[in-house]
Formats: sequence, structure tokens, C-alpha cells
Amino acid sequence: MVKAIFKKRVLYAETDKMGFLYYGHYAMLYEIGRSELIRDLGISYHDLEERIEVMMPVLSLQCRYKLPAKYDDLLSIKTEIRSRPTKMITFNHEVYNQENQLLNTGEVKLFFVDMITNKRISCPDYLNQKLDSFF
Amino acid sequence: MVKAIFKKRVLYAETDKMGFLYYGHYAMLYEIGRSELIRDLGISYHDLEERIEVMMPVLSLQCRYKLPAKYDDLLSIKTEIRSRPTKMITFNHEVYNQENQLLNTGEVKLFFVDMITNKRISCPDYLNQKLDSFF
Amino acid sequence: MVKAIFKKRVLYAETDKMGFLYYGHYAMLYEIGRSELIRDLGISYHDLEERIEVMMPVLSLQCRYKLPAKYDDLLSIKTEIRSRPTKMITFNHEVYNQENQLLNTGEVKLFFVDMITNKRISCPDYLNQKLDSFF
Amino acid sequence: MVKAIFKKRVLYAETDKMGFLYYGHYAMLYEIGRSELIRDLGISYHDLEERIEVMMPVLSLQCRYKLPAKYDDLLSIKTEIRSRPTKMITFNHEVYNQENQLLNTGEVKLFFVDMITNKRISCPDYLNQKLDSFF
Repeated sequence: MVKAIFKKRVLYAETDKMGFLYYGHYAMLYEIGRSELIRDLGISYHDLEERIEVMMPVLSLQCRYKLPAKYDDLLSIKTEIRSRPTKMITFNHEVYNQENQLLNTGEVKLFFVDMITNKRISCPDYLNQKLDSFF
Repeated sequence: MVKAIFKKRVLYAETDKMGFLYYGHYAMLYEIGRSELIRDLGISYHDLEERIEVMMPVLSLQCRYKLPAKYDDLLSIKTEIRSRPTKMITFNHEVYNQENQLLNTGEVKLFFVDMITNKRISCPDYLNQKLDSFF
Repeated sequence: MVKAIFKKRVLYAETDKMGFLYYGHYAMLYEIGRSELIRDLGISYHDLEERIEVMMPVLSLQCRYKLPAKYDDLLSIKTEIRSRPTKMITFNHEVYNQENQLLNTGEVKLFFVDMITNKRISCPDYLNQKLDSFF
Repeated sequence: MVKAIFKKRVLYAETDKMGFLYYGHYAMLYEIGRSELIRDLGISYHDLEERIEVMMPVLSLQCRYKLPAKYDDLLSIKTEIRSRPTKMITFNHEVYNQENQLLNTGEVKLFFVDMITNKRISCPDYLNQKLDSFF
């Protein structure tokens, strides 16, 4: 398993009329989670696109909302890859506030597209090798 | 079953580097879908909050991405309530582009909170009565 | 002078903790205003990019906030081009609510870039000709 | 003069079809800038609202775009208060990328509202005292 934690403060921009982080913004927290986890592996998603010419469109998103995140909360986004990617990669997320309350869980599945042929491919070696020591 | 369709153009603001509608913005499309469906029933979500003092936090969100929505696409957001709400209400969404291609499906579950007691309640009569003729 | 009006409802997604449309979202209203005005001229900004291969990056933005826009307000975005574009094009915006109160005024200046040479150019003929009858 | 610098990475969510940070998102960078500067003073904007019951609506916004911010750029948001606040407070911002190129400058003016009386007031003592050593 690969794990990473990243902190993010809730902005005024991201709150809604209820005073809570808008339910649609968790997808952005998950983006932060997965891109920082990949960066921790020694790659960056940016490089994956620019140098390896592979992009990772999203296949599905699942969110469960347990408690609201409030303005100025300092969130911890915990992200895990629990199994080796194949034709797909799955990221699992848990979002906690500064009191360590679990606010939200999420799962995002992405696939891999060769940006030259525009065809779906398996997880590129470049990323796979970085995962070798974890599985 | 209750149904509604609402049109929405993809803005530059909503596209990402791939040139597609960002995956997190579908939650906003579903918000448009459910609030316009409720408005079609002769209520508004705004009134529900202001006059009936009931708010509807989101419990869960599911999205499946089939084809990308592109800049300036004129999307049709089809929204359905397929069964009578109880302690929860479920909205099902399909998003189509102007060529009538199905791009995305989604499901959002919400619950009801009495804004005075701050407690969870069943679907308020006010909304339930509007649904009588459909179920 | 060229003018257009476009309506837009304030979404929950766009409100903040004060219950008002977040101050940063007016830039998106102005985007709607200018792209719909251009569409009214018989072109679309999308075509400008795809067919004429000209893009219009933003040079400056000015906003004045007079009254807040609230959740579910049905806004009218009035957009004007007051003088013929040269190396720049200027859009002026006024945002009104359903009670016809002026909430906000804005000005956006954009320039023209040839997407093939990546160089700055004057307003393309394609757009200029559409403006002939107005100036 | 009071100064602060805060770092922020450009997310996929925040890019647009051109591959650049959307022009409307700079307002959010300025929000980060001013709230982190205030936090550096030993207050938080959150406290200002919750404890002092003063809110700070935005009066005007000005942005100048010099160079685009790109996906995954690690931006530095430099924020300054150049003169003592009176009935208004002015924040000046400069946004740099990791190559220390100046991408954008901005100015945001805000005023102070007593949340109990809902009336406009001068800069509250609570904030003014924190600024004493700087002016």
C-alpha cells in the first residue's frame, strides 16, 4: 500500500451558504491527494503528461459525507493506493479536520490514455516501477 | 417518477487543461438538475430553506464518466426522482451533449435537517405533497 | 455600441459563507456575458479558437461591488462593447438582480493571439466585420 | 508596511482549456494572501467574524495579467498592506511562479461591517492594534 497525507485549508471561496465546504469541492481535494501522493513517489502528474505523454482521465467518483468541513478548517487529506494498478488505478481518500474527525471518504478510479495514439493503455512502466517496493 | 431537463453550456471557467469539463464540476450540474426539478414542482430549494426552514445536506455522490464534455457544449442535464423520499431523497442524473451522446451518469442522496432543532427529519410534508401525483 | 443581456441563476456552489455570490465568481459572469455577446454577432468564441485559430487572453479585470448577489437570484448580465477593438477589446458589464438593482460593474480587457505563430495580433477581420454595422 | 508570502500550487481544477490558471481564480489567490497575512498578525479572519463579529465584504478588485500561470506551477502570493486601514483596507498582491517571474498583480479593497448592527464601521481596534508596530 502507498499512503500520503496532505494539508489544505478551507477557503471562503470554497464554502457555501450553509457555511460548509461545498459538496462538489471534495473532488478537488482528491485531486490534491492523488497528485501529491504521485509526487511523493518521485514523479509528478505534470511529468506524466508532458514527458511520458500519458494522461489519466477519471472513470468514476464516489463520495460519502459524514461531517461538514467548515471555513478555515485545516483538512488532512489521506490518500492510498491499495492495490497495484492494471488498466485502472484506484485512489482511496479520507478527509479529516484539525480535531481528527473523519469528515468524508472517497474513491476515484482513473484509466491511462496514450496521448499520441489517443488509446487506452495499461499503467505505464514509468509509474509501475515507482510502485514496485510497495506491493 | 418525476423528471426534468435543464440545459447548461460548458464555460471556459469549467474546462481544464485537457479541454474538458473538470470531473469535479458534475456535482454542480447535479445541483442545477435537482434545484430546477424542485422548482418545476412549484417549490424552490430557496423557499425550503427560508420558509420551511429545512435544509438538505448531501449524504453521498456517485459519478460515472463515459465521454468528456467539451468547451461550449450545450449540455442537457436529465434529473429524476425514482421513488418517494423517506428519510432520504435520491436524485438520478444523466448528462448529454448536443449530439445526444450520454456523457455522464450520477446519483446524489440527500437528507433533511430541521434548521431550528438542527435535527434530522423525514421528507417535509410541503415537499411530499408536491410529489403525490407522481407516485 | 454592441449590447447583450444574458440571465444566470446564482447556484449554491457559487455562494459563500456570507450567503452571497463569492467575489471571485463575477469573472465567470463576465465570461458568460462576452461569449454570449459574441455568439449574438453570429460567431462563437469556440469557433474563433478552433477555426480562426485566434485566442483572447485577458489583460486586465476590474470589478466594483455595490450590492451582494444572493443564492437563487436570477441575475441579468448586461455586456457592451463601447468602441471598436484594435489591439485590444474591452467589454463592460453590469450585473442586475431580479429587482433590477445594480449589484456590480466590471470591465475586462483582452488581446488577440495568433495560435499558430503564438504572437499578438490586431482584432481579426472575421470578428471586425461582424462589428461593422455597430460602429 | 505589512508583508506576507504564501505558496500555492496550480491544480488541474483551476486550469482552463488554454492550460493556464483561469483568470477568475486570481481572486481566490488574493483571498489566500490576505487571510494568511492576517493570520501572521496573530488573528484569523475566522476569529474576526466569529468573535469580533465583523465581516469584510469586498468593495473592488483589480487584476493585471502579465504572464500565464501553468498547471502545477508553485506560485508565491506576495501580499502587502501599504497604509493603515481607515473605513477601508487595501491589500496589494503580486503573484510569482517558481522561476520568480511576475505573473500577475492585484489590488483588493474591503470595508468593515458590524455583523450585529449590519452597519459599516471603521477598522476594528482588534485589528488596528495588531498593525500598530508596522505603521
